[in-house]
Amino acid sequence: MNNSKFKHILFGEPFPTSMAIHERLDKVRGLAIFASDPISSNAYATEAVMSILIVIGSGALSMTMPIVMAIAALVLIVVFSYIQTILHYPKGGGSYIVAKDNLGTLPSLIAAGALLTDYSLTVSVSVSAGIRAIVSAFPEIYDYRVLLALGTIAILTWMNLRGVRESGSVFAFPTYAFIGGVFLVIMIGLVRSFGLFGVAPLAPQVITGEMLTEDLTQLGMIWILLRAFAAGCTALTGIEAISDGVQAFKPPEAKNAAQTMVTMGVIAMTLFVGISFLATYLNLIPAHHDSLLSQLTRTITGEGFIYYWVQIFTMLILVLAANTGYQDFPRLGYFLARDKFMPRWLTNQGDRLVFNGGIITLAIVSSIVVIIFKADEFAMLPLYAIGVMLSFTISQSGMVKLLTKVSKLKPGETLDTLETHLHHEKGWQWKRIVNALGATTTAIVFIVLVVTKFAEGAWIIVLLIPLIITMFYSIHRHYDNVSENLSTRNLEETEISHVADVVILPIGDVHRGTLRALQYAKLITKDVRAVYISTDASLKERFLRRWKKFPLLTQNVNLIGIDYDYRDVLTPLIEYIEHVHSVEFPDQSITVIIPEILTNSLLSSGLHNKTALLLRGRLRHYLDIIIIEIPFHILPPKKKPEFKLTKTVDEVPAPLEDEAPATD
Amino acid sequence: MNNSKFKHILFGEPFPTSMAIHERLDKVRGLAIFASDPISSNAYATEAVMSILIVIGSGALSMTMPIVMAIAALVLIVVFSYIQTILHYPKGGGSYIVAKDNLGTLPSLIAAGALLTDYSLTVSVSVSAGIRAIVSAFPEIYDYRVLLALGTIAILTWMNLRGVRESGSVFAFPTYAFIGGVFLVIMIGLVRSFGLFGVAPLAPQVITGEMLTEDLTQLGMIWILLRAFAAGCTALTGIEAISDGVQAFKPPEAKNAAQTMVTMGVIAMTLFVGISFLATYLNLIPAHHDSLLSQLTRTITGEGFIYYWVQIFTMLILVLAANTGYQDFPRLGYFLARDKFMPRWLTNQGDRLVFNGGIITLAIVSSIVVIIFKADEFAMLPLYAIGVMLSFTISQSGMVKLLTKVSKLKPGETLDTLETHLHHEKGWQWKRIVNALGATTTAIVFIVLVVTKFAEGAWIIVLLIPLIITMFYSIHRHYDNVSENLSTRNLEETEISHVADVVILPIGDVHRGTLRALQYAKLITKDVRAVYISTDASLKERFLRRWKKFPLLTQNVNLIGIDYDYRDVLTPLIEYIEHVHSVEFPDQSITVIIPEILTNSLLSSGLHNKTALLLRGRLRHYLDIIIIEIPFHILPPKKKPEFKLTKTVDEVPAPLEDEAPATD
Repeated sequence: MNNSKFKHILFGEPFPTSMAIHERLDKVRGLAIFASDPISSNAYATEAVMSILIVIGSGALSMTMPIVMAIAALVLIVVFSYIQTILHYPKGGGSYIVAKDNLGTLPSLIAAGALLTDYSLTVSVSVSAGIRAIVSAFPEIYDYRVLLALGTIAILTWMNLRGVRESGSVFAFPTYAFIGGVFLVIMIGLVRSFGLFGVAPLAPQVITGEMLTEDLTQLGMIWILLRAFAAGCTALTGIEAISDGVQAFKPPEAKNAAQTMVTMGVIAMTLFVGISFLATYLNLIPAHHDSLLSQLTRTITGEGFIYYWVQIFTMLILVLAANTGYQDFPRLGYFLARDKFMPRWLTNQGDRLVFNGGIITLAIVSSIVVIIFKADEFAMLPLYAIGVMLSFTISQSGMVKLLTKVSKLKPGETLDTLETHLHHEKGWQWKRIVNALGATTTAIVFIVLVVTKFAEGAWIIVLLIPLIITMFYSIHRHYDNVSENLSTRNLEETEISHVADVVILPIGDVHRGTLRALQYAKLITKDVRAVYISTDASLKERFLRRWKKFPLLTQNVNLIGIDYDYRDVLTPLIEYIEHVHSVEFPDQSITVIIPEILTNSLLSSGLHNKTALLLRGRLRHYLDIIIIEIPFHILPPKKKPEFKLTKTVDEVPAPLEDEAPATD
Repeated sequence: MNNSKFKHILFGEPFPTSMAIHERLDKVRGLAIFASDPISSNAYATEAVMSILIVIGSGALSMTMPIVMAIAALVLIVVFSYIQTILHYPKGGGSYIVAKDNLGTLPSLIAAGALLTDYSLTVSVSVSAGIRAIVSAFPEIYDYRVLLALGTIAILTWMNLRGVRESGSVFAFPTYAFIGGVFLVIMIGLVRSFGLFGVAPLAPQVITGEMLTEDLTQLGMIWILLRAFAAGCTALTGIEAISDGVQAFKPPEAKNAAQTMVTMGVIAMTLFVGISFLATYLNLIPAHHDSLLSQLTRTITGEGFIYYWVQIFTMLILVLAANTGYQDFPRLGYFLARDKFMPRWLTNQGDRLVFNGGIITLAIVSSIVVIIFKADEFAMLPLYAIGVMLSFTISQSGMVKLLTKVSKLKPGETLDTLETHLHHEKGWQWKRIVNALGATTTAIVFIVLVVTKFAEGAWIIVLLIPLIITMFYSIHRHYDNVSENLSTRNLEETEISHVADVVILPIGDVHRGTLRALQYAKLITKDVRAVYISTDASLKERFLRRWKKFPLLTQNVNLIGIDYDYRDVLTPLIEYIEHVHSVEFPDQSITVIIPEILTNSLLSSGLHNKTALLLRGRLRHYLDIIIIEIPFHILPPKKKPEFKLTKTVDEVPAPLEDEAPATD
């Protein structure tokens, strides 16, 4: 089949199921892959904070550093909380798993709903920010940013449908190139700013604005600071990814994962603090066409090699960050579908052993977000991070509960969780305090985010998560009901519903197609009802003439003739079928045979009435009607026929009306 | 059914076939209905001529009158030609019928193709011109003209689908109101222009332009005049309509129709000449936002009652003219479909005894034309009238041939045409000369139209008509081939292809749905092959465990297990079916049973794999595979189920995988 050949070229040859093995990552590559999301936040996190502060005047930008330090402290707390998760869920402890294991269904579904929205936003935000990095360097393509973002999503989708292996070293490079580049910029920036090593000092930009504190009440001031803090919390997204993928590390998995987590936190926060410090020191002002990181790099190093290096690897690390969405969303979708909370096709693995359904769903959702927000990541940010904070809170609360259970274990006893066996632990009190602190802090931040960003878009998430949870439950209800209906539990073999020994065959004319159907009907039952709906006396006469030409085939067949004074032959036909079904054979299945003429092209199929298709469509809604389709394929002509207008009916092999109204 | 109730409210209750009787028209109403198309041309015909002349300066507008007189002469010739057609084809002599009867298939199809394009353009041009009349009076709605035109087409389509009866007196009113209004304007115009009856004379506008004849060669001058003449020929469209609908008149049909035709010609030309005379006398200049007729009326009567009367009834008569397209197109489509040159569904009469297919096709085509030409009727005019002239030429040539045949009849002999019996006639020589003159004149005009309007759009028609004729022929070829395939001529009863005594049942799991299918399979054959595609060892084990739970149902069933290391279970399944079909039972039909799970809503059906649908789709392409669909309807739940996450497989009635991959 050409179709399948094309598919193989585009997506590669299918992988056999047995090929599903997982390569393990060392810490260097593990960091590169899992850290791309939080580290890439540096492309926009500082700018997000400053964009809020600038509202009350450029003088307010001096508040950036205290806010950044608070966020860095928050990251520290979260990192240490998650180390507990890693150590207790070495098989992988995503929020959904931890919540399901310790808190029950509803909390796990809240976490799952929050994460699904956040994974979608990871793709939209990261891709938009990546395009922005390129647009900062090449402003002339600004007008095409939505198209470029959608194109990037399309490429990511295609790569993931092909089943890209994240473990490749190719993927490690952009992360380290970005870290190295930005680190270098910070170093040069510090050296030049303070004229170290005898370098001529770089003067901060002169800004004229002042902080408009006079016009602000104290409450208003706090409000702005909270909003700026909330905006900066986007730096925390993706931190939890390692806890979900512990098994991707080489043994000892948990230890390697935990160490990677700490390294990631340190690097991300170093860059965050460094960028923020220099940006405020140099008095940079957020601008629409030129990202803050781009401004910073240009101010410090000029528009040379380092500038383009940073811009290009900002773009690439952001694409990698978006790619983590492509790993996380389908995986969570699979877990949810396995537990019957999402459509079952999310568990289907495609030719390349990836979850096609989840990948395509994510691509559609994130593309819609990009279109709605015109690829402006700052417009999306109020929606972002909220879900992450909610899932942090739930996950850490679950850990607190788990550690409480662990605390009750006597030495020697074990606790079997979903994923592993736990023993009595030393220092559980301290660990529990870490997790409790994590849960409390993220809960507070969650509330701050919802309140301060509510009007700007957070209301969408507040509305969306309950809707998603309602959807989870109704899907679950549906599958439970289907299972109930299909279950063979307590089913006696004799209970299967009876099939009536009757076949109804709608027949519009006597031709090879309908005769074949008639033959088949006679094979499977003694009681064949050929139903002819007559709308025209002369056609009926011709029908009967032809019917009598085949005495062998038509013998023992009940020919039911129905005269009908309207043109929609389906109505009397379905009435008759209903009558037989409900009056003659109540509580039994009956069979309807539909003869169907199939032409060799879609175009020519448009030349035929779709009566068979319509009949099938309407019968399907009835209970217990079995439909047999007898196809009759029209072969292409052997020779070119002559054209002459046909004037009489019986001269020609089979005139127009030979194609029965009810059968083709 | 709600769907059908809604349909009845929108389109009215269905009419029984026996209700198809036709009310006859007297001459007064006959004129109103058939004349709306040619008479409404006065809304734009003069302006079309002047718009061409103005190109060489406003002085050239003095050439309008001679051109208008030439067109009036042409109308006279055509009217007298068509009186012959009416008298010889009292049952209705459309160009397609006359050509088919006298000249053969190809000429009749050329005429038909030409008319189909012209009927579509009648709708587009008339509706656009009607909207222009309203826009002239209310310039503020100019920007909405495309939408308004599409809305008008939608209303016309809806009315015609409801089966509007043209014979109503309501339809007569706008035609006479328009004729009366314009006639009054011409009278007042003449009185005021020449200061008759002591009225203060109306001074012509002062125009400064001159005729730029110096810059033109003599050939260039002729070219412009020919183009102006060609533009004015739109006045002739619709003249032939009466010849097509002779039977709509009260007896004596032919005589009444012929008299109506003459009256129509006289009225249309009086208005045309009158408008053109006054417009040139008063030195009016064509303008974009204000139609010439609107300018004329305003100049003569001011912007009072008469002005709005003329504008509104211009709009309404143009809508009536568009409506003639809705009568002609579906009727010609029916004739062509009956002769197998158009899709057969054009012969289907809907609930209201109208040809739904033709009406909807026309609505789509004319809407597309309106959109392409932005509802600017002057942009469409180069395409218009060409088809009419071509069909005039063919039809009149046919008449010449018919009269030649009549001339050879001896007194007492009769000639049987498709429609009537002809006798020897007196004066056939003169009649033939009239038709020959008609054919020659319209042929010349046709060539003039094609040549002068070629670059402006006539090339579209020149390209389109051969394409349409090619389509006619390939549709004919298709239907002939289908007839050939289906024909029972020389078919022996024993020849019907054999059905193999085997049934293949793809089975993904043992549940009520598949057990029911299994039971059905066993009813109709001894050789049941239940095919299980295994992609997972543990699922296979569970399948076999369940299979063994039903020894009675499964006994004598061949269970074919196929281990498959990929996920697309359709591939091995179809390979197996192909194998059975081509190797085990060559040249015989085989049967495949597809168990299908049907949910009660479209939304919930999205939660299930579409494997059954995909399998059916792929099998349909194979010859001789009969498909039996055994539906299993999922009933809504009786009570609200509790939610708990299910951890083991055997505890629950039927887990997720119970819905077999290949069966739902």
